[in-house]
Amino acid sequence: MNRIYNFSAGPSTLPVSVLEDVSKNLTNYQGQGLSVMEMSHRSPSYMEIHANAKQSLRNLMNIPDTYEILFLQGGASTQFSSVPLNLLNPSGKADYILTGSFSKKAYKEALRYGDIQIAASSEEDDFTFIPNNDAINVRPDADYVHLCLNNTIYGTRFKPEQLPQFDNIPLVADMSSNILSEEYEVSKFGLIYAGAQKNMGPAGLTVVIVRKDLVGKAQDITPTMLDYATQIDKDSMYNTPPTFAIYVAVQVFAWLEEQGGIKAIEAINKEKAAKLYDYIDQSDLYQGTARKENRSIMNVTFRTLSEDLDKTFAKEAKEKGLYNLKGHRSVGGMRASIYNAMPMEGIDALIEFMKDFENENKRGIK
Amino acid sequence: MNRIYNFSAGPSTLPVSVLEDVSKNLTNYQGQGLSVMEMSHRSPSYMEIHANAKQSLRNLMNIPDTYEILFLQGGASTQFSSVPLNLLNPSGKADYILTGSFSKKAYKEALRYGDIQIAASSEEDDFTFIPNNDAINVRPDADYVHLCLNNTIYGTRFKPEQLPQFDNIPLVADMSSNILSEEYEVSKFGLIYAGAQKNMGPAGLTVVIVRKDLVGKAQDITPTMLDYATQIDKDSMYNTPPTFAIYVAVQVFAWLEEQGGIKAIEAINKEKAAKLYDYIDQSDLYQGTARKENRSIMNVTFRTLSEDLDKTFAKEAKEKGLYNLKGHRSVGGMRASIYNAMPMEGIDALIEFMKDFENENKRGIK
Repeated sequence: MNRIYNFSAGPSTLPVSVLEDVSKNLTNYQGQGLSVMEMSHRSPSYMEIHANAKQSLRNLMNIPDTYEILFLQGGASTQFSSVPLNLLNPSGKADYILTGSFSKKAYKEALRYGDIQIAASSEEDDFTFIPNNDAINVRPDADYVHLCLNNTIYGTRFKPEQLPQFDNIPLVADMSSNILSEEYEVSKFGLIYAGAQKNMGPAGLTVVIVRKDLVGKAQDITPTMLDYATQIDKDSMYNTPPTFAIYVAVQVFAWLEEQGGIKAIEAINKEKAAKLYDYIDQSDLYQGTARKENRSIMNVTFRTLSEDLDKTFAKEAKEKGLYNLKGHRSVGGMRASIYNAMPMEGIDALIEFMKDFENENKRGIK
Repeated sequence: MNRIYNFSAGPSTLPVSVLEDVSKNLTNYQGQGLSVMEMSHRSPSYMEIHANAKQSLRNLMNIPDTYEILFLQGGASTQFSSVPLNLLNPSGKADYILTGSFSKKAYKEALRYGDIQIAASSEEDDFTFIPNNDAINVRPDADYVHLCLNNTIYGTRFKPEQLPQFDNIPLVADMSSNILSEEYEVSKFGLIYAGAQKNMGPAGLTVVIVRKDLVGKAQDITPTMLDYATQIDKDSMYNTPPTFAIYVAVQVFAWLEEQGGIKAIEAINKEKAAKLYDYIDQSDLYQGTARKENRSIMNVTFRTLSEDLDKTFAKEAKEKGLYNLKGHRSVGGMRASIYNAMPMEGIDALIEFMKDFENENKRGIK
């Protein structure tokens, strides 16, 4: 089989062994005579998958019993509405930390449902950094503080050890692009949400982890499907859940357990990212675009010294089987998304190509 | 391969050839070196799948250019909110025809967003029939009239030739359990919505077909993701769509085209349903539970003369490889869901079993 190295920001590369297993079971799951896609969501076979998904995620992330796990649809963008609709109570106020275009979108959506303020922002410097904790201004009666833990487009992240905490104000985190990539303590959050299509499985599944005491005070206008209380009450089966996507996620969770869990993958992820950043930092041709102390270990953003050369880079990389290295249109340059499933060989192949490309092109630059 | 006959109401059986093709391409789609699950939704390969999905559905259902096709998430239950949030304008009034628990759920959700009335209901007789058109009372200034075309739980349907029409009031139809099963004229509707998990593909994809002139007047409180105008503007890619589910749907659409399209499958579906109903009607042991003139051709509901025997029926049928024949808990008895992908051999096997079961059990009954 001739697989490419896929550096896509999402949907993104999945573990090959998971895909092979899914393929093998696609027409006849474990000899049961049907595909998981064809299973009634009320059947014992599917219910077992559903329960496994919850338990595996609980184990992997060490999620306390005081939190519920939901498997929903609609992506993070639907959560941009669900969060304020469910959590803006009693004060109706929430404060948002803006560190990229997704947290800004979340903020704009929340503005429609309450009294929302910006607690801090790095927009002044094109979101290339994460505001320091002492620069974050939160109202003492805010119902929650919202942030995006990893900024896919800009290649920055809140490190676990730098996570801001506010007395009695729950932290709500969009964790779409770094869930399961390194250890964050769930108890530091009121609510975590994440689209599956980066570190968990196919697009179309959204995971929500929510502290139980925060649920049950949704605004009257909240669509029933967006009300966490409804979904908790029905164990994410108020209607048919995205069964097949949940099944693939279970396989990814099992794969991650085999790797040794989040602690083990964190070490690998840090090694992968460090290799890339170290190479970039010593290079004459490439520059990282995010501040060093705020660098993401999932999305490595960099550029050469000219836009034309950036284009040539992405084009020639593709010819070598290194796909989707073009940066987001709002930032330009390059971006290597190196989620859990990107093997070390992919990093090595990328660095090898970067070296060759630098050798070929640096004379013209210097 | 030993596949069962799966009479599940949804998620439900899919064409084996589609599953085989999906399996074959799962780790390496058309030799491109990655799974469809791993494709960026902005990549040319995925964009082609997305465009194919729209064009195939447009061709199959003969959807006029004055209608947009959306590929969304959240199931019909999310549409129960989206429809009133988007369409309750200018009068803020809508009338609902209740023919089952799903149309009742849709009605209850709409009550939260406007002045909603029941135009007709068959609840008095446990939803065993479809109200006659002359029994439907619609307010002349209603913004829309809502109905559920096929009632999965009760085994009834609005036939294409009996579809109610109201002057200048758009008809909104939940078509989740009979889309693509027989010919309905799209121009008779203002909006059609359907979950994919019966006749189109995996759960997690919701198709909306909406007349363009009805869009753009959503209530201010509408979550951005639920606003049809946003989704039309972004071609269902305001955020990452359920790419893999859309890809499987494309394969199902192609399979349906191979069968000769909706006209051809309608003939087969009618033959399948007629075989079953004819057998039931001449039998001493079995009784259909829906009024004959309103029978669904997708969900055949029936019972024996005792609840105990119903249980034995479902249990023994399963032992013969005929799965999921137990009726919905709110109706009891049996239900055979015979969507497009259920082959004639499945119907024949079911009737064969029903005959044997009748022979074994009728002495005790008569």
